[in-house]
Amino acid sequence: MTELAAAKAALKTQAVETPSWAYGNSGTRFKVFAQAGVPRTPQEKLDDAARVHEFTGVAPTVALHIPWDRVDDYAALAEYAEDRGVRLGAINSNTFQDDDYRLGSICHPDPAVRRKAVDHLLECVDIMDATGSRDLKLWFADGTNYPGQDDVRARQDRLAEGLAEVYGRLGEGQRMLLEYKLFEPAFYTTDVPDWGTAYAHCLKLGPKAQVVVDTGHHAPGTNIEFIVATLLREGRLGGFDFNSRFYADDDLMVGAADPFQLFRIMYEVVRGGGFTPEVAFMLDQCHNIEAKIPAIIRSVMNVQEATAKALLVDRSALAGAQRAGDVLGANAVLMDAYNTDVRPLLREVREEMGLDPDPLAAYRRSGWAEKIAAERVGGQQAGWGA
Amino acid sequence: MTELAAAKAALKTQAVETPSWAYGNSGTRFKVFAQAGVPRTPQEKLDDAARVHEFTGVAPTVALHIPWDRVDDYAALAEYAEDRGVRLGAINSNTFQDDDYRLGSICHPDPAVRRKAVDHLLECVDIMDATGSRDLKLWFADGTNYPGQDDVRARQDRLAEGLAEVYGRLGEGQRMLLEYKLFEPAFYTTDVPDWGTAYAHCLKLGPKAQVVVDTGHHAPGTNIEFIVATLLREGRLGGFDFNSRFYADDDLMVGAADPFQLFRIMYEVVRGGGFTPEVAFMLDQCHNIEAKIPAIIRSVMNVQEATAKALLVDRSALAGAQRAGDVLGANAVLMDAYNTDVRPLLREVREEMGLDPDPLAAYRRSGWAEKIAAERVGGQQAGWGA
Amino acid sequence: MTELAAAKAALKTQAVETPSWAYGNSGTRFKVFAQAGVPRTPQEKLDDAARVHEFTGVAPTVALHIPWDRVDDYAALAEYAEDRGVRLGAINSNTFQDDDYRLGSICHPDPAVRRKAVDHLLECVDIMDATGSRDLKLWFADGTNYPGQDDVRARQDRLAEGLAEVYGRLGEGQRMLLEYKLFEPAFYTTDVPDWGTAYAHCLKLGPKAQVVVDTGHHAPGTNIEFIVATLLREGRLGGFDFNSRFYADDDLMVGAADPFQLFRIMYEVVRGGGFTPEVAFMLDQCHNIEAKIPAIIRSVMNVQEATAKALLVDRSALAGAQRAGDVLGANAVLMDAYNTDVRPLLREVREEMGLDPDPLAAYRRSGWAEKIAAERVGGQQAGWGA
Amino acid sequence: MTELAAAKAALKTQAVETPSWAYGNSGTRFKVFAQAGVPRTPQEKLDDAARVHEFTGVAPTVALHIPWDRVDDYAALAEYAEDRGVRLGAINSNTFQDDDYRLGSICHPDPAVRRKAVDHLLECVDIMDATGSRDLKLWFADGTNYPGQDDVRARQDRLAEGLAEVYGRLGEGQRMLLEYKLFEPAFYTTDVPDWGTAYAHCLKLGPKAQVVVDTGHHAPGTNIEFIVATLLREGRLGGFDFNSRFYADDDLMVGAADPFQLFRIMYEVVRGGGFTPEVAFMLDQCHNIEAKIPAIIRSVMNVQEATAKALLVDRSALAGAQRAGDVLGANAVLMDAYNTDVRPLLREVREEMGLDPDPLAAYRRSGWAEKIAAERVGGQQAGWGA
Repeated sequence: MTELAAAKAALKTQAVETPSWAYGNSGTRFKVFAQAGVPRTPQEKLDDAARVHEFTGVAPTVALHIPWDRVDDYAALAEYAEDRGVRLGAINSNTFQDDDYRLGSICHPDPAVRRKAVDHLLECVDIMDATGSRDLKLWFADGTNYPGQDDVRARQDRLAEGLAEVYGRLGEGQRMLLEYKLFEPAFYTTDVPDWGTAYAHCLKLGPKAQVVVDTGHHAPGTNIEFIVATLLREGRLGGFDFNSRFYADDDLMVGAADPFQLFRIMYEVVRGGGFTPEVAFMLDQCHNIEAKIPAIIRSVMNVQEATAKALLVDRSALAGAQRAGDVLGANAVLMDAYNTDVRPLLREVREEMGLDPDPLAAYRRSGWAEKIAAERVGGQQAGWGA
Repeated sequence: MTELAAAKAALKTQAVETPSWAYGNSGTRFKVFAQAGVPRTPQEKLDDAARVHEFTGVAPTVALHIPWDRVDDYAALAEYAEDRGVRLGAINSNTFQDDDYRLGSICHPDPAVRRKAVDHLLECVDIMDATGSRDLKLWFADGTNYPGQDDVRARQDRLAEGLAEVYGRLGEGQRMLLEYKLFEPAFYTTDVPDWGTAYAHCLKLGPKAQVVVDTGHHAPGTNIEFIVATLLREGRLGGFDFNSRFYADDDLMVGAADPFQLFRIMYEVVRGGGFTPEVAFMLDQCHNIEAKIPAIIRSVMNVQEATAKALLVDRSALAGAQRAGDVLGANAVLMDAYNTDVRPLLREVREEMGLDPDPLAAYRRSGWAEKIAAERVGGQQAGWGA
Repeated sequence: MTELAAAKAALKTQAVETPSWAYGNSGTRFKVFAQAGVPRTPQEKLDDAARVHEFTGVAPTVALHIPWDRVDDYAALAEYAEDRGVRLGAINSNTFQDDDYRLGSICHPDPAVRRKAVDHLLECVDIMDATGSRDLKLWFADGTNYPGQDDVRARQDRLAEGLAEVYGRLGEGQRMLLEYKLFEPAFYTTDVPDWGTAYAHCLKLGPKAQVVVDTGHHAPGTNIEFIVATLLREGRLGGFDFNSRFYADDDLMVGAADPFQLFRIMYEVVRGGGFTPEVAFMLDQCHNIEAKIPAIIRSVMNVQEATAKALLVDRSALAGAQRAGDVLGANAVLMDAYNTDVRPLLREVREEMGLDPDPLAAYRRSGWAEKIAAERVGGQQAGWGA
Repeated sequence: MTELAAAKAALKTQAVETPSWAYGNSGTRFKVFAQAGVPRTPQEKLDDAARVHEFTGVAPTVALHIPWDRVDDYAALAEYAEDRGVRLGAINSNTFQDDDYRLGSICHPDPAVRRKAVDHLLECVDIMDATGSRDLKLWFADGTNYPGQDDVRARQDRLAEGLAEVYGRLGEGQRMLLEYKLFEPAFYTTDVPDWGTAYAHCLKLGPKAQVVVDTGHHAPGTNIEFIVATLLREGRLGGFDFNSRFYADDDLMVGAADPFQLFRIMYEVVRGGGFTPEVAFMLDQCHNIEAKIPAIIRSVMNVQEATAKALLVDRSALAGAQRAGDVLGANAVLMDAYNTDVRPLLREVREEMGLDPDPLAAYRRSGWAEKIAAERVGGQQAGWGA
């Protein structure tokens, strides 16, 4: 098989999970702009996600967020998804929107609040049992706003204790993905602020605990692909929350702010053996001002393009230049792949998969946007609050 | 008059404006935690602000935010304030919370939206006429999230045109304070992102247009006191929006994150002749998790302490060491003032002003917190949305 | 003329100035790694620069740095350059390497040091007269390391005074380009830290004073293309010092760290009418570990590629999408140009200019690297210190 | 014993190690400004360090840097130090100033260079045997400047292998302190860029491997005290390299840029049981423009003041407020200690230790500065290069 053929084969196996909440409304603390046609129910979110998969062919699963996607019968929801050609993916917990969580959840000074938070996480594992989801994704908004507000170290002890209880509840084939974030909503300390903290906790928990890298959760100047390479080397990269940012956790479409960075990340994934189902490739974005479904399709395509470029790197030439200490030559090999226009290749891949080569045009022609704008009238549009 | 006496005299003339919205609920995009006793009306906000002034003696004015503080009769509102010992201060416009403003306000590509935005600003000047406010504070959320989304330069043209119309409407003794901000809620470009842009617009508008420095609106590493010194040198420092931050626009209590920076800022104010009524010293903060009124009292006290230290700098010794090129000596003179515990001095100042030396304790003893928690039940608590 | 033909025509007129000092050794505070074949004299630097122009066709001028390129006869040096097919470009002053400049140069508290610094700048204008250079590029290392070390505002007064004297000395057709930089080598204040400060000084000086944007001199998160658009709108963009950075002023090859940013900058240049000789496009880089001449060739090619992409933006489609408020559509138009592989186009451009389509391969085949390594033995290699 | 007495007792046991290289010349890549009286030999550095200890009483050890402090007889050097009242401290390796290290040292692609680097580290352990030093401090300048330049992951493998060999050579009671740094001198990747990477390596090496926190080596916005608390919780905090910064690794006097941060760090040290000899408190600074010995004395005093404030925190009141979820109350307890002027307390401590209460004045009166300026004439002043 030629290198190009191998790249195409790999691209056909790609899977990018889309998040149910990205189909709903989102915004900043200043304003949430509502959009026409936004889903009112978890089922309608799945309907939209199914369109993304229909036109891209590589978005087969949908992450749920509890309680935003709470239903009475998760098995029925899973069946609903499968009837539409997609499957339920990771279960995302939420321990930041209840009034009790003003000072934290699993790290809260009050044991009663910690109990409540852990119970919610255990409920999420119950849901995983029902949906068949493999991954429990944990992001904690826990932290403090003011120096002295709470005991930084005691909060780590509480975190470790809560995580251990949830870890113990994980079933065969289930995993816990621990996400880190520099800041927001907490502004002085965050209880899992960096990959090192997440990694240290995962190490103590055991092999089912893995670190998830959200590409928007780092300090300025952080080399994310280095972290990716390191976590793969340590066997602790559980997955990605993809998005992009210029400043903070902007949650823009992945690849929109720094496509070269996304390529470098995907190169380290490929180089480190991470282009496997063991690493979950998920989107986690906010489409505050742009149309949501096309934005998600575009994001999936951006991941595909970065992946294609990463797969096209002439690794033998690269290794040769690196061994020779040829700084410019090695850089040129990498840049040659990056500078390649891979869109024709991806059009071929799509055609070979029986898809329209232009997912966005196909989506537009489908009339789905007009249909949901007309039909989804009344009710409560989904958003972060519900 | 000794230096200490001069410092005390100056401290007694200090005026810190508190923002009506800081008495209401606020939060992050993740959650707004409601608090007991939060005002439901502009009048109740003024009641709370009056307590802050009662106990600190240096918070005589209250900034309004339109439409959050919209009332039928602004003259009556002004009278309401004065009856409680405070006055209405700057009028803050809001051109970011209407659905029309999804892609901007005064910089929007659609002239109809720009018209609406400018009309709102003109209405704010009408309100200033009614309230007797001197300052129109303009912060624009305008910007773009994605490269290419709009024409960066055309947006500047629109901005200039809109500002000029509003400037022309300003009456005798009225001013326009133009605020800049690096990012948020826009994530790719912001139409007034830095002091240079605000300054360039003010220059073209005329002497009534001044720059306002929000201490949380800069890129990491920006030397804010340098900007303060520069704007004072240029005669264009209209005022401050005080708050503090560790990461982005965290809107924590001023002086909480970096008290040394606040001192350095106040030193440049004093050194540059900016400790006058021509510079408006305003708070602009969010008390998301802490009790609001005590947080505002504490913030006012933090400004007082930084000011006291700045006033205590031995400027003659400093100038001597600077002239001599004595790096360590000059730094030591500044640090000597900073390291001084000025709380006893401020207690004296308060006692001489007929106040309790400990404003927070006096507030606690007043029973106000319990009273408003008991009385302000029902209705719609004030927040950023209303 | 088709758009493609127009783009090609524009690309043939492009001019990127290379800096004499980039041909010499450079490094960090930790180590300067010497390389074989590095020039010992200004003439040898010109020899190398002539190779870059020979193979790229778009690097016709060479910036000098005084005193590093001090010679007895500048007219002879200019002739030397022209004999080799290049011309002398901007004159760069140096007021940071004399022991007298420990606490600054033009902003120093001691008038004698200021006099010395201004005299040096005046000497640079004398050199411009002799070389026929149009631009005096001024970068000041001036600043302070410790709060209180010197009077921030007085330093601005001194700066203004010194600049005014030099401005007065400029002849017909000569310009002063004022560069700003956030930090380094000063660590607390820098006397020209941002574009706003440079702009304010240029405004007061007059139309011959223009701002120069070094792409590595900003705080993290700064939107450089916004500054470019703003300065063009104000008629104050004098030129660029191109390089790239991940963290601080890394001085890597332009386009190496964030090629998408370089494209966005060049798009604003094109859109704002800045692709003219009035804007000087200069490199200012350090090739600490990579071979210098190929690195400079590669950098010139990176600028070409970004320019080609910027020229290929379908501006009519872009304007339409922007007017329509089509966020995704407008972004897609821009990204379509960015994602295009313009290397074939540039190979055509080079062939039409009578050049080898692959400048790096042509350089390698030329044997120049081996020749200078063999011949330039002994003597003192050029570097920042000489 | 009262709390104050306990604080005083603790302050009397404090030990801050000063670095031999801070007594020599240093600078930026732009210029090294030489100073009068700078040592020419390791012995003269020890003479200066002895003055710092003489006047502060809490700087009993001096870190060496190999090869800058290479001597023929380290036992004799240790004796020389003890004769002057100080002892030799940590041995700092240098694998960045030899031409071979252009592309790295212990991570270099060429095994011969790696061998050389490891041999140097082993030599450093030999020196520790001779000097009786406990700690080998390892900072690696290793990294890459351009994407693709080398294989990020292979470099980690090489690093692990090299460290393991050196670890195996450590004797009884000897430790390896692994330092991390975000960037500089490498600008794309750094092989030990963050505490997580250092921690992961130390974990695999064993208990004698500990992480050292240089306070200037983090990305903007990083919460250093959180890292300190975490490393203490993990039992992996080996020590500090103290300095301060506004932007990057500015290496200013510790406490000069953000004294509140230093206090918060020292509070976490105290709270986490880190105020013990197991944690090495070292300075690592550059006094580029200020007089070196007084700057070091001042730095030691800054550490003392931050420590004193940290010791004065009313931990019982703090814990109570934290447990009660009293955000403002808990913050106030911390700030109360920070706002205390501890200089009188430290004067008392010094007097009780038989020292002059004002170390800087005592140093000035000693005539040492004049003496060394007069005597140390000729020879080669010490600096980073020798």
